[in-house]
Amino acid sequence: MARARSFASGLAESSPARFAILIFTGLILVLTAVLALPISAADRSATPLADALFTAVSAICVTGLVTVDMATHWSTFGNVAILIGLQVGGIGVLTLASILGLVVSRRLGLRQKLIAASDTNPMRTHAGPVAESQAVRLGEIGGLLTTVAVSVLAIELVLTILIVPHLLILGWEPWPAIWKGFYFAASAFTNTGFVPTVEGMAPFAEDVWMLTVIGLGVFVGSLGFPVIFALARKVRFGARFSVHVKLTLVATLGLLVVGALFIATLEWNHQPTLGSQEPWFRPITATFLSMMTRSGGFSTVDVSQMNGSTLLGMDMLMFVGGGSASTAGGIKVTTLAVLFLAAFAEARGDQSMNVFERRIPNDVLRLAVSVVLWGATIVATAAIAILHITKEPLDVVLFDTISAFATCGLSTDLPGRSPDSVKYILSATMWAGRVGTVTLAAALAASQRRQLFKRPEERPIVG
Amino acid sequence: MARARSFASGLAESSPARFAILIFTGLILVLTAVLALPISAADRSATPLADALFTAVSAICVTGLVTVDMATHWSTFGNVAILIGLQVGGIGVLTLASILGLVVSRRLGLRQKLIAASDTNPMRTHAGPVAESQAVRLGEIGGLLTTVAVSVLAIELVLTILIVPHLLILGWEPWPAIWKGFYFAASAFTNTGFVPTVEGMAPFAEDVWMLTVIGLGVFVGSLGFPVIFALARKVRFGARFSVHVKLTLVATLGLLVVGALFIATLEWNHQPTLGSQEPWFRPITATFLSMMTRSGGFSTVDVSQMNGSTLLGMDMLMFVGGGSASTAGGIKVTTLAVLFLAAFAEARGDQSMNVFERRIPNDVLRLAVSVVLWGATIVATAAIAILHITKEPLDVVLFDTISAFATCGLSTDLPGRSPDSVKYILSATMWAGRVGTVTLAAALAASQRRQLFKRPEERPIVG
Ligand SMILES: [K+]
Ligand SMILES: [K+]
Repeated sequence: MARARSFASGLAESSPARFAILIFTGLILVLTAVLALPISAADRSATPLADALFTAVSAICVTGLVTVDMATHWSTFGNVAILIGLQVGGIGVLTLASILGLVVSRRLGLRQKLIAASDTNPMRTHAGPVAESQAVRLGEIGGLLTTVAVSVLAIELVLTILIVPHLLILGWEPWPAIWKGFYFAASAFTNTGFVPTVEGMAPFAEDVWMLTVIGLGVFVGSLGFPVIFALARKVRFGARFSVHVKLTLVATLGLLVVGALFIATLEWNHQPTLGSQEPWFRPITATFLSMMTRSGGFSTVDVSQMNGSTLLGMDMLMFVGGGSASTAGGIKVTTLAVLFLAAFAEARGDQSMNVFERRIPNDVLRLAVSVVLWGATIVATAAIAILHITKEPLDVVLFDTISAFATCGLSTDLPGRSPDSVKYILSATMWAGRVGTVTLAAALAASQRRQLFKRPEERPIVG
Repeated sequence: MARARSFASGLAESSPARFAILIFTGLILVLTAVLALPISAADRSATPLADALFTAVSAICVTGLVTVDMATHWSTFGNVAILIGLQVGGIGVLTLASILGLVVSRRLGLRQKLIAASDTNPMRTHAGPVAESQAVRLGEIGGLLTTVAVSVLAIELVLTILIVPHLLILGWEPWPAIWKGFYFAASAFTNTGFVPTVEGMAPFAEDVWMLTVIGLGVFVGSLGFPVIFALARKVRFGARFSVHVKLTLVATLGLLVVGALFIATLEWNHQPTLGSQEPWFRPITATFLSMMTRSGGFSTVDVSQMNGSTLLGMDMLMFVGGGSASTAGGIKVTTLAVLFLAAFAEARGDQSMNVFERRIPNDVLRLAVSVVLWGATIVATAAIAILHITKEPLDVVLFDTISAFATCGLSTDLPGRSPDSVKYILSATMWAGRVGTVTLAAALAASQRRQLFKRPEERPIVG
């Protein structure tokens, strides 16, 4: 036990990225084993490995894609395992992201700046112990874990309190209202998108209260903890926002509005989706769907019935995903923002990328490019393989592949009707989409470079 | 006349980018007017505006997409106008690119380095006369135009000499063999991809000689003049290659091999394409098709019959396109190379992007990012609009839209069966794909930034 602890401690200190990957993969394997047990299924038969693995990955990576009917396939035991899985997955992602944030912030400390006079950093290329000032000790991880877990549960509790009375008014029994209300709250804030009701989101398709609460939960969850904590500090102390917070808020709200206008315009008169709703309600549904591409993944319309043009636009919105160090997936909104800042700087002939009176260092752009290349490679490889196996149309395959990569969970139901090979490919895509950006962010965190003393400099988190 | 010359001179000096756009658009409008005349059509009836414009844009932008049957619709007069159009378009692109290259090389001259101490460059934001050392005079443009035109015609003549005897051996009459042989040579080297025969490329589908000569013409044309001249200098003087030349050659050959393996693997047993050919010939066809995605656009198989997986891969190859300052389109192979160099530098923790013992300045990455964002925006906007109008499947729409943007010309025949609105959208896409990267390259060319004296520095052309 002591040796295992020492091993974990050593690994966490020497390579946070490898530690993160190991933890994630381990959690997925454990949940797969649990879900494959007969006790986890409602009919007490063993769930096939492909479906158990897919559901486990989908829960731990807070994706929300499904191959079985979530409301009927699992027993109560299975449902509890899934709920624990998505909570652990969500908290795990947030904690790991915060650890990386800790490393990044240390890296930018003044002492680091003065020490980091050499170009080469042996920590990057060699294994072994790292400099004291950059290491993250297991004790710190524990502290962070507690803070994150308490905050997550507190926010989910607030959302549950907003949902349960509403369900009671709708005539639900108390126990299902509490249990499923909490499931909804957790599923929304962790950006998972699992729905615990047999009818899915259909009963709430025109329920403004539920759509607002769930949309708000997804919105706050997709901002990421650095932004949530900054907002809390703002309320309490009136503290100044960092560039990362401003960029995340502006980009998230901008994408929300653009996406809503886009979906409303293209689907306004389309009978299978918005066309069958009251005109006054269509903007609400469009806004809700736009929010869900951040990576909530709840849907009140049949996504597979949407226009091909809308699906392509939503592909792009999903690929961008949510905020850094959040449970949302994708390349992250700040990554997109940095790319556009680079293009603006280039168009204006500025020497550096400037935003909100701050200069963004050039290596942030390189990380942003790395993240986008990584994402595009994952999506292209998976989509080509799935296209070749299934011969399904490109719009369907691209949509569900990007949804898996960005852990979004909006779906044209491709996973459910696909052979096992495709379920494994999509599982790998979810895993790579979730773990990959964390790893890349860790690569940045572990690096040191010569700092020039020019304008005051700030580093938004990308990836 | 003198005033017009003075105006042109002033415009070329103050804004090469705007000059390029004006010239291009003017040429397109003139050719549209000519092609709309009854005399240009084989049946002596006026060609509809949408088709005349589409063909004119396709010729001047050396794209090769068609809405009418190129072998039967046009009269000899129309065919000559198109041949002149694609020659002028090809030479125009090369000349403009070379002008920009001139400006870039001047910018990097030692004197510039010493002068360029100020961050801000008034030339970027204000109209009016530019500093003497950066201006490009009309006289110089004339000189360049002559060099480029002579080189283009010389290379096309060599290709014609390789093609015509072969056509004569195949039993062609002398006059068609010479006229269509030259058409093939010009169409290949300028990366246009128009085919002057009624049967298209079908008669040459298993003709190793023709495929090799056309493939070679497309290959050399897609490298771009900076590389072609460097290769010529290498042969004559044994001169050292620049980073740009090395990057272009490595990336072009790499994409050729990867694309050929990809196409051969996915289409090997697919009856409508490679599956119906002799096994020994399939790698040849796959290599030819891979070369054509650089932006040649000739095809010996029915592209619309290919697997969806192959089409998606070819989308990506076409989007990359050919070499900078060439008649090929796309975001350019060096742009892709710079993005990957950035990712490698990031992964290794290097402070700067290094390749072939040279450091690539960071602003090159910013330009590469700008070019990719520009390309992705054009393609996404056009594809969403066309999807919404036609309700065609995504794979078809995406393929032909990217083919238009990258001026490639491989096609699933979408333009021919589409309403006029789609023809206009695709015309605009070709225009934007051709003129946009030139404009962005000009933006780089016109900019000055503080140079730090570190490692010896070289600037590959991107975009
Ligand atoms: K999700
Ligand atoms: K072409």
